[in-house]
Amino acid sequence: MNSSQEVVDFVENGHKSYLPHLSIDCVIFSYHELRLKVLLIRYHGHSQFGVPGGFIRRHEALTTAAYRILADKTNITELFLQQFYTFGDSPTRLNRIEIQQNHNKAYAKANVALPEDHWLAERTLSIGYFALVDHASVRVTPEFLVEEYDWCDVNHITPLQFDHNEIIEKAVVALRAQVYQQPIARLLLPDKFTLPEIHALYEALLGQPLDRRNFRKRLLALGLITQLAEQRKIGPHRSPFLYEFAAGSRAD
Amino acid sequence: MNSSQEVVDFVENGHKSYLPHLSIDCVIFSYHELRLKVLLIRYHGHSQFGVPGGFIRRHEALTTAAYRILADKTNITELFLQQFYTFGDSPTRLNRIEIQQNHNKAYAKANVALPEDHWLAERTLSIGYFALVDHASVRVTPEFLVEEYDWCDVNHITPLQFDHNEIIEKAVVALRAQVYQQPIARLLLPDKFTLPEIHALYEALLGQPLDRRNFRKRLLALGLITQLAEQRKIGPHRSPFLYEFAAGSRAD
Repeated sequence: MNSSQEVVDFVENGHKSYLPHLSIDCVIFSYHELRLKVLLIRYHGHSQFGVPGGFIRRHEALTTAAYRILADKTNITELFLQQFYTFGDSPTRLNRIEIQQNHNKAYAKANVALPEDHWLAERTLSIGYFALVDHASVRVTPEFLVEEYDWCDVNHITPLQFDHNEIIEKAVVALRAQVYQQPIARLLLPDKFTLPEIHALYEALLGQPLDRRNFRKRLLALGLITQLAEQRKIGPHRSPFLYEFAAGSRAD
Repeated sequence: MNSSQEVVDFVENGHKSYLPHLSIDCVIFSYHELRLKVLLIRYHGHSQFGVPGGFIRRHEALTTAAYRILADKTNITELFLQQFYTFGDSPTRLNRIEIQQNHNKAYAKANVALPEDHWLAERTLSIGYFALVDHASVRVTPEFLVEEYDWCDVNHITPLQFDHNEIIEKAVVALRAQVYQQPIARLLLPDKFTLPEIHALYEALLGQPLDRRNFRKRLLALGLITQLAEQRKIGPHRSPFLYEFAAGSRAD
C-alpha cells in the first residue's frame, strides 16, 4: 500500500478481495559481513519489528501471493521463495484485541481504525516462506505503512511481533536442513571461490564452527562442489585452489 | 462423523465451529510387504480415493486439529504427525461447483446437500501432514461417511480426488529428505535388526536400489545406526551381525 487512500480502501473493502484467517510471512535471509542476517520491518506506530507479510487474494494462487506480498512490501522480486511451515498454534494468533490493536497502530498513519468484528481482527494462520538472497543485489524500498527496515543478525534478534521469533527460528532450521542437500548458497559466492570463502559462508549459515578438512571432504563427497585446476594468487606464498558449484548439483 | 444427524449438523452449523477456506490432509505411510504404502479412503458415493482430511475448529491449535482429524477419520492416534506443505495453487481447489458436487456425493448418505454459497464450497487451502507408522500396530476403523479404505503402494496410485496425487508426491519427497537425517524408520524395525532388513526398508522408502556396502558405510558414518557384537543365527553358515539405531541419533 502506497498511500492513505489505499489503506482506507483495504480496511473498508479488503474482505471482498482477500481470504480471511490466512496470511503469508516472508523470512528473507542474506549473507553480509560474514553473518547470516534476516530482513525485519517496523510498521509506523509500532515499537517491535517483524517479518514482511500480507494477505492472499480470493482467487490468487498461494505461490503468486507470496511473491506479490514480498514485492509490495520490499520491492524485492528476484529471488526464489520456498514455503517451509504454516503457523497456527500460537495463542497470540488467537487474541482478537491484541490483533486489532496491532493493526490500528499502523493504520493510524492513514487515520483509519478497524471497526469491531473486522475480518482482520479474526484468528489468522500464517504460511511461512523463506529465501536466501545476495545482500549486494537487493535494494529494499519499503511501502507506505513501513517506517523502517533492518538486516538483523539471526543470532541477535530482539522480541518481535506475534510469533515472528518462532517463524524465524523455524526458517533457520529449514534453511540449515538444505545446505548440504542443494547448492542453495550458489548465489552468495562468486562463480569461482576459495575453500576459506565457502567455509566462512557455511559457518555463518550453520551458526557453528566447522572443521575445514572434513567440511571440504563432505562437500566434495556430496558432489556439491568441484575443485578446479586453477589457483588464485593472493600473496607470494599463497595461491589457494579455486572451486565451483557442480553443474546441476543436488545431493540425494 | 458417526451418524446422519452429525453430518446434517455439520452442514447446517459447521460455519460456527470451523474456519472457512482451510483444511488439513493427512498422508499416512506404512511399510508392508517390503513396500512403502499410503492410506487412502473412499467416501460414500465417490469413485475416487483420497487421503483423510478435515477442518480446523475456530479456536483450536493447528497441530491439535491435525491429530483430531486423523483420529476421527481413521481411529489412528499413536503416531507422530509432521507438517510438510500447504497447498493453495491447484485450480481444482478454486472450482466451487466441483467442490460442491464432491461434498454432496458423500453427504447423500445422510440425505443432505449443500445450499448455494455454502462455506464448504468456497476456495480451500489445505495444510498437509504426514506420518510413517508401523503397519502391524495400526487398526483403521473409518468413520460414517467413509465407504472403504486401502493401503496403496506409493508407486501405483490411481488418480485421486482434487490435488491429492500432488499432496502424496510432496509427502514422499518430504519423507525421503529425512531418512538420512533422522531415525525416522526406528518404529518400522525390531530393536535389533540385520543389515539386509534395514537395507530393504530403505530401498522401499527411497524407491530405488541402494548399493549395500555404501549404504552401510553411510548409515554408520552419519551415526544413525550402531553395529552390535551380537549375531543372529539364521542358517548353518549364515550369522549376520545385528545393528541398532543409535540412542538419540540425529545426523546434522
